[in-house]
Amino acid sequence: MILEIADFRIQPGQQAAFEAALRIGIATALSRSPGFISARVQHGVESPERYVLLVEWQTLEDHMQGFRDGPLFAVWRGHIGSFFAGPPSVEHFQAVPLA
Amino acid sequence: MILEIADFRIQPGQQAAFEAALRIGIATALSRSPGFISARVQHGVESPERYVLLVEWQTLEDHMQGFRDGPLFAVWRGHIGSFFAGPPSVEHFQAVPLA
Repeated sequence: MILEIADFRIQPGQQAAFEAALRIGIATALSRSPGFISARVQHGVESPERYVLLVEWQTLEDHMQGFRDGPLFAVWRGHIGSFFAGPPSVEHFQAVPLA
Repeated sequence: MILEIADFRIQPGQQAAFEAALRIGIATALSRSPGFISARVQHGVESPERYVLLVEWQTLEDHMQGFRDGPLFAVWRGHIGSFFAGPPSVEHFQAVPLA
């Protein structure tokens, strides 16, 4: 399993519309891509234009080849892309065992 | 509930020692602070010197006043601070309901 962390900055005052677009994009595109496990969206307290999307995928390839190079990515970005104030930062992570 | 997202860059080649220090710091300091709920640590795939710490707190004050202004913070930073390649980025987030 791999965790995608995507860091978005949106245009001021668009929070409610962006959150609605995220819900639609997750339901209609992101969550339908093979290898998708779960998604959480977090909204910034100190930076109200900042959102962090945490997506669990089965593999890195499920995200990068399956989703980003596949047909659902244009649907996803079609919903949320117009809100961005700049290019999102997206990287992948592996859990560090703590026990 | 509030999510702290802390973004660390460490010095190259120190991953194993940093992860050991994190485990000790979480067990002996972070997790003992009032209002602490859970911690996860994520290690960067594209950026192997990058770690993201996700900490759930009951309230923002539990983190900022209770922990950061309290006696356990020096213990925590004593374990992990020497590994940092720069100042960590720390902000707080609230979950956006998706359903």
